[in-house]
Amino acid sequence: MRILFLHPTINRKADEAKKRFLERFSSEQIIIDFMSLDKGPAHMDLYCHEVMAGPEIIKKVIWANRNGYNAIVIDCFMEPGLHPAREVSKVPVIGPFESSISLALQLGHKFSVLSFLDNAVPQVERQVRSYGVESRLASIRTISTPVLEFGYDTTQVKNEVLKESRVAIENDRAEVIVLGCTLLFGLADDLMKNAGVPVIDPLLASFKMAESIVTIGLPLSKKYLYKKPYRLR
Amino acid sequence: MRILFLHPTINRKADEAKKRFLERFSSEQIIIDFMSLDKGPAHMDLYCHEVMAGPEIIKKVIWANRNGYNAIVIDCFMEPGLHPAREVSKVPVIGPFESSISLALQLGHKFSVLSFLDNAVPQVERQVRSYGVESRLASIRTISTPVLEFGYDTTQVKNEVLKESRVAIENDRAEVIVLGCTLLFGLADDLMKNAGVPVIDPLLASFKMAESIVTIGLPLSKKYLYKKPYRLR
Amino acid sequence: MRILFLHPTINRKADEAKKRFLERFSSEQIIIDFMSLDKGPAHMDLYCHEVMAGPEIIKKVIWANRNGYNAIVIDCFMEPGLHPAREVSKVPVIGPFESSISLALQLGHKFSVLSFLDNAVPQVERQVRSYGVESRLASIRTISTPVLEFGYDTTQVKNEVLKESRVAIENDRAEVIVLGCTLLFGLADDLMKNAGVPVIDPLLASFKMAESIVTIGLPLSKKYLYKKPYRLR
Amino acid sequence: MRILFLHPTINRKADEAKKRFLERFSSEQIIIDFMSLDKGPAHMDLYCHEVMAGPEIIKKVIWANRNGYNAIVIDCFMEPGLHPAREVSKVPVIGPFESSISLALQLGHKFSVLSFLDNAVPQVERQVRSYGVESRLASIRTISTPVLEFGYDTTQVKNEVLKESRVAIENDRAEVIVLGCTLLFGLADDLMKNAGVPVIDPLLASFKMAESIVTIGLPLSKKYLYKKPYRLR
Amino acid sequence: MRILFLHPTINRKADEAKKRFLERFSSEQIIIDFMSLDKGPAHMDLYCHEVMAGPEIIKKVIWANRNGYNAIVIDCFMEPGLHPAREVSKVPVIGPFESSISLALQLGHKFSVLSFLDNAVPQVERQVRSYGVESRLASIRTISTPVLEFGYDTTQVKNEVLKESRVAIENDRAEVIVLGCTLLFGLADDLMKNAGVPVIDPLLASFKMAESIVTIGLPLSKKYLYKKPYRLR
Amino acid sequence: MRILFLHPTINRKADEAKKRFLERFSSEQIIIDFMSLDKGPAHMDLYCHEVMAGPEIIKKVIWANRNGYNAIVIDCFMEPGLHPAREVSKVPVIGPFESSISLALQLGHKFSVLSFLDNAVPQVERQVRSYGVESRLASIRTISTPVLEFGYDTTQVKNEVLKESRVAIENDRAEVIVLGCTLLFGLADDLMKNAGVPVIDPLLASFKMAESIVTIGLPLSKKYLYKKPYRLR
Repeated sequence: MRILFLHPTINRKADEAKKRFLERFSSEQIIIDFMSLDKGPAHMDLYCHEVMAGPEIIKKVIWANRNGYNAIVIDCFMEPGLHPAREVSKVPVIGPFESSISLALQLGHKFSVLSFLDNAVPQVERQVRSYGVESRLASIRTISTPVLEFGYDTTQVKNEVLKESRVAIENDRAEVIVLGCTLLFGLADDLMKNAGVPVIDPLLASFKMAESIVTIGLPLSKKYLYKKPYRLR
Repeated sequence: MRILFLHPTINRKADEAKKRFLERFSSEQIIIDFMSLDKGPAHMDLYCHEVMAGPEIIKKVIWANRNGYNAIVIDCFMEPGLHPAREVSKVPVIGPFESSISLALQLGHKFSVLSFLDNAVPQVERQVRSYGVESRLASIRTISTPVLEFGYDTTQVKNEVLKESRVAIENDRAEVIVLGCTLLFGLADDLMKNAGVPVIDPLLASFKMAESIVTIGLPLSKKYLYKKPYRLR
Repeated sequence: MRILFLHPTINRKADEAKKRFLERFSSEQIIIDFMSLDKGPAHMDLYCHEVMAGPEIIKKVIWANRNGYNAIVIDCFMEPGLHPAREVSKVPVIGPFESSISLALQLGHKFSVLSFLDNAVPQVERQVRSYGVESRLASIRTISTPVLEFGYDTTQVKNEVLKESRVAIENDRAEVIVLGCTLLFGLADDLMKNAGVPVIDPLLASFKMAESIVTIGLPLSKKYLYKKPYRLR
Repeated sequence: MRILFLHPTINRKADEAKKRFLERFSSEQIIIDFMSLDKGPAHMDLYCHEVMAGPEIIKKVIWANRNGYNAIVIDCFMEPGLHPAREVSKVPVIGPFESSISLALQLGHKFSVLSFLDNAVPQVERQVRSYGVESRLASIRTISTPVLEFGYDTTQVKNEVLKESRVAIENDRAEVIVLGCTLLFGLADDLMKNAGVPVIDPLLASFKMAESIVTIGLPLSKKYLYKKPYRLR
Repeated sequence: MRILFLHPTINRKADEAKKRFLERFSSEQIIIDFMSLDKGPAHMDLYCHEVMAGPEIIKKVIWANRNGYNAIVIDCFMEPGLHPAREVSKVPVIGPFESSISLALQLGHKFSVLSFLDNAVPQVERQVRSYGVESRLASIRTISTPVLEFGYDTTQVKNEVLKESRVAIENDRAEVIVLGCTLLFGLADDLMKNAGVPVIDPLLASFKMAESIVTIGLPLSKKYLYKKPYRLR
Repeated sequence: MRILFLHPTINRKADEAKKRFLERFSSEQIIIDFMSLDKGPAHMDLYCHEVMAGPEIIKKVIWANRNGYNAIVIDCFMEPGLHPAREVSKVPVIGPFESSISLALQLGHKFSVLSFLDNAVPQVERQVRSYGVESRLASIRTISTPVLEFGYDTTQVKNEVLKESRVAIENDRAEVIVLGCTLLFGLADDLMKNAGVPVIDPLLASFKMAESIVTIGLPLSKKYLYKKPYRLR
């Protein structure tokens, strides 16, 4: 089984570390590849970054379909290009937000999402509502330390995430915390011990979801929403 | 007042006719310009067409802001790039879907949208839900004649729209019909006479909405969702 | 084009000032008339005030239809009699709440309504839900200074509105503010400068909405909800 | 205990028969009075009929509060004036729609409402949504025989109701039928035997609800929505 | 008329006091019996308590159907076994939560539920949503004093309920308070005087609801959800 | 990793075949055990069957926690005892309905559930709504052939499922089909080829979900809803 993690920016600094992290949860039969964009945005915080990354994402998804990948993960919590990618793809295209929420729903009644910038709050709210699970959302909370680059101060971020998680748990009655960025990979275990509730790592969630869907042999539905384009340019 | 209609494909055949149509509802003080993309998709039916058009839309929106336009209309019912465009724009960015629904809500209890391809049904449903007005939607119905090119057979399309409108009115209890494509401009009056309920022309709706918002002097909210990008590439 | 603003109380003190305010946003082709009730309530704060105003509203709406008006605006944010008026009217009947919300939805993700009395909060909430846009509502907040009479202390009201708007923006994540009373006409520009988000003037919103609908030539739907009364007494 | 049934039209033909019907389900301690309007509409099918009846309803409700009634029932399924009446009343004001739905929710999963005219469908839908129970509604269906006057053809109406109930049960998966007019009193038992599911008589439902609320000693909440008018005219 | 109150624990200490309380609101024609479980949980706070009580509840409900009861009330706000009991019962099975909410909806716009343990908050929220009235819920608030045994400190509980009710009223804009435990019977009148809004006693609410449904002659719907088991073991 | 499949009836005929089926999708590191109830219902079609199975399910879940299982799957689409089991369990408890829906949401816009008996329709609808994903449900459809016993006529069932799936796809616009019974294991691949959309096998879905959650190391949230019972009997 071959899974492509497509990181929708030009920044590839974290790729190796992400790969090593995921391989701890993988088996020999699974090949995990990471790929970033040749051109596109350096960050992914805004809808206009999604737009800038869009055409490259589509190209890479088509390429991955032609090169034997069994599933493609959009390696960003905002899942830019997820729905258009599913139009041009035969193999499943998986998003870390969708995967994380799907796990969260099975571990407690309400989940909170921890995110970064102010504009992320309505973005995540729109994403939750588009997925259809708004009645299970406790809150969306933000931390102010930017993790825009791999190599961010892990301790500071963990402390802030922990602090906001506790507010989410006590004030908003969150029972599960979803980390709102795939760059936060590898922190969930520590956070879980301190927060006392499940903490979802979106990168890991999307990997196991992709693996499950490929193992079961489930395809994307090409009826209606993700209908194959009759004429792709 | 200067309003830019940005058509998100490379096809500019209908621009002149659209402009003449809108000027019938305009005044001397308003300059209406139409602009298509330099490169991008020839049609706009799928999410991946939106992706292909995205970067050019953003460029044109930035250009329009720098060149004195008071409002920008994304000239397509699917409103590709609407939300990212609002991030990079100071002046209001208007979408024909949003404008049409806003008018429809004030004329009757439930509206139906008439669209074309099969995949459009879940797309429009997602759009309605994203706008938040799903409880006012009667149905989404499709006609099979393609209007992919200006110069389509008007009579045949009108007959089909009329037939499906009547089904929407009688079976789905629609009280208002929204035409789901800006290429259908200029047909509403005739359809209205035959269908017996209001029929919304999305091109005209977006023009009057843009004019109103500019006249009142309402800006886009740059707080939260449409926050100005701190670093735009 | 002739538009009638029907103020649903016996109080006509603000009529002249409202008319002058709207004419700043109008053209020569549009005649704006204001009319109050011959008998009815002095204020419009409660459902029972709506009841007291109801029969007179219906009479005036029928009169306006017979006297060449192209649209009728119910000049009160609570829109008393809006739905029954649409039953007896051929021409569009417009409400400031509906018009304001329709504009707000196009300028930001969530809106807050600023209102006055305690009982207004559930009233506005019911109105928002009846319109179907509850998922876009950030909050309803009240100010305590009464503006029951034209000639109220503008500065004090602006200060209080500004204070509550800031709470709505910071705490409730409102991106657009809707003023919950047509007597607050003419304050939005100043408030907007200070609040930093769009502020909707409901009187002006309803005027531009009426003008747009008349210009486009859209009628009320007389199918189902606003069906013509078979026997009106 | 004294309960006033306030019929919101000028038609009092059915009053005696309704009273005799309700007394079959009552005890000696309860006095049931029926009262119609002195002036107002002859029928109650449209929102504008509600408007015409409104001021008289308010007057009668105030009168009933001053004359020792313990509860007031608005004797019409559309419940005209229910919310404004609650503002001016100290004693509970009960509506047949609300009472019927409250019983229906406890007898099966989904209910259908049987109504008459075409315009009633969106009206009832708005009422269901305003009450907040739209997720429990199976359907709203209409019969074409008018029961505008007491003395209507009972057999024909029963047959039509039965026919539409069966469609609601088989097609819409209704488990409980709510009769959408208080003039249909006394038919539920027969219909129930034939339809095989509970059929709610709205007149009787509102009577037992009023009796229960008075016996328990529950007042209207005068906080927020039904706040006492500070100055009633 | 005979009504069985089935208390779903093995604790029968409060039975006599509950019976005497209800008889104050009853008439000679009604026989009220209380019954506890022969084996099962001592408390009812968790879903697993419901499970432990389940089989005994079903047995008692079948027994009550064979022994001439006209209605059965599950005497616990959590209503354990309500839906399965309705499958095996011919006579109505009533729950205090459903009865209380049904009354609350008719007395004010929004209600709050007062409950005890932390885990009760999501439980009650799920119950409210399952009943379909989530848009009418103001909040769920907890008090920390346990009332696990009859003979609890009434004064302390009343003070705490009052304190939390006031928070619900002022902060959450609750207009009606629902007591979230049938052991709180008999406190509503006092609380109502102090809180200034209606306070619903769930035991009394369920009694009057059962009485009304039996008097009207309404059966459970045995179509679809509560279909009679074809083979009961 | 050890996963216990707990089948909530006394019927163990399918256990061996299910185990062999799942092992085709498993690895050597995973031990799959199947266990049925010592006493309880023979079928699981009604809420009262859930009740009868309840106490045994709790006992087995506690047993499994003490005997080294890393996750427990309730082997029935109705997921009887899922929520109470999570209260008494430290290790994740997984349900086939929740797992199936979670996968379905990532493969297409709307899903339909195929079920058996008439009463299953409102049951499944309540389950979907309790999970919070009602806006993604296309329809619930039933087939009439009973699969109450392993050894049912596979060909006939496949034909009926295929027929109803096609109705769900064409009429209800389903994009993904969820099989509503774990006894239908092993049929999805064949059905998928014929139906042309993804078909979810709930047994397999729950297995891969359990495996993912255990591999990631995610616990149940013991905060609020699934709080550990302070005193379990």
